[in-house]
Order: sequence, then C-alpha cells, then structure tokens
Amino acid sequence: VDQEIDTLQRACAADPSIVSLAGGLPACQLFPKAKIAASASRAVRRDGDRALQYDWPEGREGLREWISRRLAARGASVSKDDVIITSGAQQALSIAAHLLLGSAGGEPHRRASEGGVALDAETYPGALDIFKARGAVADDARRARCAYVMPAMSNPRGQVMSPAERAGLLSWAAQTGGAILEDDAYAELVFDGEPPAPLLAQDREHVFHVGTFSKTLCPGLRVGWLVMPPKMRALALERKRLVDLQTNGLTQSILEDFLAHDDFGQRLAAARRYYAQGAEALARALRRHLPEAEFNEPKGGFSIWVKLPGTGVDAELLAEAARHGVSFDPGSMFRVRSVARSESPIELRLSYSNEPPRKLDDGVRRLAAAWRGLARHRAH
Amino acid sequence: VDQEIDTLQRACAADPSIVSLAGGLPACQLFPKAKIAASASRAVRRDGDRALQYDWPEGREGLREWISRRLAARGASVSKDDVIITSGAQQALSIAAHLLLGSAGGEPHRRASEGGVALDAETYPGALDIFKARGAVADDARRARCAYVMPAMSNPRGQVMSPAERAGLLSWAAQTGGAILEDDAYAELVFDGEPPAPLLAQDREHVFHVGTFSKTLCPGLRVGWLVMPPKMRALALERKRLVDLQTNGLTQSILEDFLAHDDFGQRLAAARRYYAQGAEALARALRRHLPEAEFNEPKGGFSIWVKLPGTGVDAELLAEAARHGVSFDPGSMFRVRSVARSESPIELRLSYSNEPPRKLDDGVRRLAAAWRGLARHRAH
Repeated sequence: VDQEIDTLQRACAADPSIVSLAGGLPACQLFPKAKIAASASRAVRRDGDRALQYDWPEGREGLREWISRRLAARGASVSKDDVIITSGAQQALSIAAHLLLGSAGGEPHRRASEGGVALDAETYPGALDIFKARGAVADDARRARCAYVMPAMSNPRGQVMSPAERAGLLSWAAQTGGAILEDDAYAELVFDGEPPAPLLAQDREHVFHVGTFSKTLCPGLRVGWLVMPPKMRALALERKRLVDLQTNGLTQSILEDFLAHDDFGQRLAAARRYYAQGAEALARALRRHLPEAEFNEPKGGFSIWVKLPGTGVDAELLAEAARHGVSFDPGSMFRVRSVARSESPIELRLSYSNEPPRKLDDGVRRLAAAWRGLARHRAH
Repeated sequence: VDQEIDTLQRACAADPSIVSLAGGLPACQLFPKAKIAASASRAVRRDGDRALQYDWPEGREGLREWISRRLAARGASVSKDDVIITSGAQQALSIAAHLLLGSAGGEPHRRASEGGVALDAETYPGALDIFKARGAVADDARRARCAYVMPAMSNPRGQVMSPAERAGLLSWAAQTGGAILEDDAYAELVFDGEPPAPLLAQDREHVFHVGTFSKTLCPGLRVGWLVMPPKMRALALERKRLVDLQTNGLTQSILEDFLAHDDFGQRLAAARRYYAQGAEALARALRRHLPEAEFNEPKGGFSIWVKLPGTGVDAELLAEAARHGVSFDPGSMFRVRSVARSESPIELRLSYSNEPPRKLDDGVRRLAAAWRGLARHRAH
C-alpha cells in the first residue's frame, strides 16, 4: 500500500463532507440491519454454546452446504466438504496463494521463483499485494504457474470474461498443470441475467475458487469461502488452522440463521437493480461533467474504470480532489506494472456503490473541478 | 496436526456421551449469552452501518483503547495505537511469526535459517505448528532469534515463570537483540492474586505481546490482539491487511457494546473461582483414581499436565480412553522434540475447564480404567 495514498484515503473517509467514489464499499442502505439484529439475538439465544465456543477450522456445516448448493446451481459439482469458510475472501486468496506458491520453511508446492502468477493489467489490489509481497508476479504470463482471474465480473473494470478467454485459460491449465485462482466476489452482482458458470464448474483439478458475502450482504461479517481441488483439502485446512484456527463462530451462527430466514435471490435482485442504477447515474455524470473521460459501462459490480487524457501522478489528483470534496481510488493501486509516476496514464476507479445516486452527480462535478484545477495549475 | 489424533478427537467431540478432558475450551456456562445477545442487537441497530461495513486493518478504536488501558493497569506503557485487533490470538501469533521470521519473497527481518524460535519443552500446539511449518524451531536455544513464552501462565503446565527466568529472558533480549513473543492468553485466569506484569511492561523494543478474549469471555468471538514494538507497527498493519483485511467488524461492535455494559473485573473473578474449583476437583480425582499420575497443581488456566509411569504411544491411550468414554489431549501435541513414539513418556493434558466439576471425577475414573486396560493388554 502506497503510504501517501493510504493517508489521503483515511483523511477522506473520516470527513463526512467528502463524496466518496472510493473504496468499492457496498451500500449501507442495503444492509438488512433489523434482520441481522434479529438473527444475532436468535443465534446467541438458541445456539450460543456452539456460536461462542471453539469450532473446527473448516467452518459451519450448514453454511458450507448453503454455499455448495449455490455453486451446484451454477453447474459446479461441489459438496460441502469441498468448501472451507474463511475470514473473508481476502483470507481465502491468502491461503490459496500459500498453497500455490509456498513459503519459507513451509511446504511449498510450487516455488515463486519457478514461475509466478499471471494477472490482468489492472486487478484487485488485495490480491495484487499478496502476490507482490511474495515476489510472485509473473514477468512472463506464458511461464506463469498460476493465473489470478475474475471471470464472472472483473475488478476494477466491471467486465465479463469472453468465452474464448475462458476456453483459453482452461486449456492452458489442462495443458501446463497451471492453477487458476478464480475470484468470484462480484459474480452475483452481474446486472443482466444470471451469473455465468464459474470456471470451477469445468475444472475441479486446477481451479481454486474464492467467494464472499462481503459484496452481496455485508463485509463486516468477514465471511468468505475457498473451494480447492479435493487433493488440497487437508493442506488448506492445516493452513486455515495455522493462520487463525477458525472463522468467527458467532458470525457463522448469525449468518446460518439469517440465510434460513431470508430470500437471498430476491435480495440479490434488489441489489443488482440498485447498483445498476448507480452505474447509470455515474456514467451520466461523467458524460456531463467530464466528457473527456474514457470508460466502458460496467456489466456489474461497484465501479467504473475511467481514463483521463494525458499522464500524471494520480495521487496528486486525489489530493486536489480531496480539497474539492470528493475521493476516488487512484489507478496505480490496481496496476501490476509500475510506470515512472509522472508518465503514468491517469486512470481512476470510481465507485457508485457507496453513495446514494443523487450524490454521484455532485461527486463527479467536484472531481471535474479538481481535474481542471490541476490542469490549470500544471499549465502555470 | 497428527491426523490420527485429529480424527480421534473429532470423533470424541461429536459424541455427547464422552467426558471431555480435551481441548482447553472455556466453560460454556460462563458465556454471558443473554448479555451478548442484547449487545448484538444494540450494536447492529445503533452502529450497524459501521459494524457491517469495511473497516481499517488496525481494528476498532474503542476496543484498542480498552485493551491498552488494561495493559497500562498492569504496568505496560501502551497506547491504543500500539494495539492491533486480530482474528484471535492465533492470528496475532501468526502475524508476529511472519514479522520475526520472514517468508519467501516477503520482507524478512530475520531469516528462519539465521536462528529460530526457542520454546518450552512443552508448549501451545497452535504456536508450535506455526514455527514448525516455517522450519523455525531453534535447535539450540542459545542461538535463537526469538523466544516464545507464556510468562504469566504457561500452557500446558499451568505454571508462572519465576522472577529469575523473567530477568534472564529480558537480559537475553537486551543483549542479543533477540525478540520475545509473549503469549498472555491465560494471564487473567491466574487463580491467586492479580496477573503479573507482562514482559511488555519492561521492554517495548523486543517484546511482541499477544492477548485474547477467547479464554476470559468466548473463543467464538475470534477477537485477540497484538502489541508490537512501535517501529514494527506499519509492517504489522500491512501484514494484517494482506491476510484478512480486518477483524470482524460486527463482533468488534458487539464487544465494544458488551464491555461498556459489563463489569469485566467481576466476570474475571467469577471465572477464576470457577476454574480454580475445577482444578481442585480434577486434582482430587487424579489422586483418587490414578494415584500413579504425577502432576503439579496448576496456578491458573484450564488444564493439568499429567505424567503417567513408563513409556508408550499416547494416541493408543486416547483410542482406549475414547472406548471408555473419556477424551484428553495427548502430550505429543505439545512437544517440541519428537521422540520415537513407543519410547515417549506418556504425558497428557487434562482440561478441567469444559466439563462441570461433578463430571471430572467420572472422567478420570474412565481414564484410569482405560490406562489399566491398556497396561493389561500390553502385558499379554
């Protein structure tokens, strides 16, 4: 994490007058607070001994069953024993990276130096940081040991992987024995139609599949999951036990109760409508206030990936934007290859997910003012 | 984790007819279920947007303040910014181990190969597994880079580190620059008097301090903490972000509300009385049913460390014990040096914490029957 950007983003987040186009946060107004409060109360009263006691590292059976049923409905032949409940998708990625890339003194299956991880040119910073910390970003995608991908819905671009790319990836894995780390975090927030089948549905041997309740329900629950190739289950459990023994039992009990009482399909449909409206409002605001911005309309998820003309330092734009009362995620956070900072293309991830649509127009207006202010400043 | 032992322990845990002297689990009857249910409901209703949204990796400010005040009351000059909330003590240990021992491709401060971790001859298996997985158990304690210790209350032995040992350890750290990883999990469950000052109170530069609510409140909350030397804070936060972004926000909100409404001192006093009675009941049962067992009465915590005469395979005794309706933790789980299995001393950790005192006598009676049965069997 770039310390300058981190400091700026913390300052913005602490200032309620700032319109936040940063963070990729779900909308608080979609959090089913009353229902979660009721589930919390029921879970502790009815299931308290289990909810509050130690539990096994794989996580609650009912939750694993719920997840495996949903994956099965999307064509993946997965049983509850193939699923490990993790402390969010980030932990699932971190465990998968450990299994795939090994660690000093550990039981490395593949050494980072033998290959590395192939990534999209722009990708999820949480995953990027894991691979960078291991020195495991592949220099040459053709020699990679593993590919980290978001086929159903990419972040930050909000696009769907084409059938040709999917086929190419699966055949690469089959031919080279390379692993696919499939991040499915936004899959259920595809705006039109049903989420595509996960790659997991076509290959159980090479695909490590990661999902989460953070985008569809609430991130504060910190419940995600990892589905690994069956032969890796024991090692994954061993790793889970090492890193934190087990995922929060109280939250797992609350979530089990919540899911038993909730119409999750209806909830997802409402969330998709909400975020699709946000995407439309943000795109409209960009066309109105920042017509020089280039972007593709997102097919789902929380954000639009925007390119502004010219080159520059995106942290400088963020500082100027903060002074104008708006924040965003600088493109450099998502970028695999670092470019000399002042020659970088100026790209931004703008999230429409965490502000009500009426504030998005205002946010982009402020961003445009910051952008023009910076351009004037540079012209002097 | 030994697969044979793991399988046996899972089978025992699933069978309600088995008296469990295994696991080091806190007593469910001490869980304040109604109060936690009330706090959960209040936290979500009043603080839901924050509780359920993403949060920063260091954890909730109020919780860090509460923890730093308690440590300050024990003589450590610690502020809230020195504390990181972790997903249980296990994660705190795992993060500290990473900072101290490095990882492939990471930013190692000390390579495992340069030294390693010095441990008690028997120690907490969760920590032991972390160091073993890194190949970082020191062969020679004098050349260790780090010492993992439980000065206030050791596990599995339930003893307090002597003043001379404390002084020796602190002077070793000061002289060699070695690190001390202080596991304070059971400190507040010392039976007589107040918990001793943590080593942290005497050395902020070399001590990494780990604590948890798992033993004093409930493990299912998965809330622990790490206090690191100030110069390591940024790296610790970076690591926390990599492994799971942040600790469960819902639980942190619940816990903040709970602590604001609870008399924690009174709660601890009641817990100490309860566990002290358990320790006494278990010791009495051992003297009655297994007079050949050697043990020291614990000064706190959850367990008695017992040595039986002769040598043998503790997993065989566990299998026999399960047939007699009792379970325990085999000593080999806690042992740093592996001995050829059949020549191992037969040691067991017997926990009095998770069964009501009236069942402890019955448990030891069953254990004695299993032990005699095995001895007869071996005599044939």
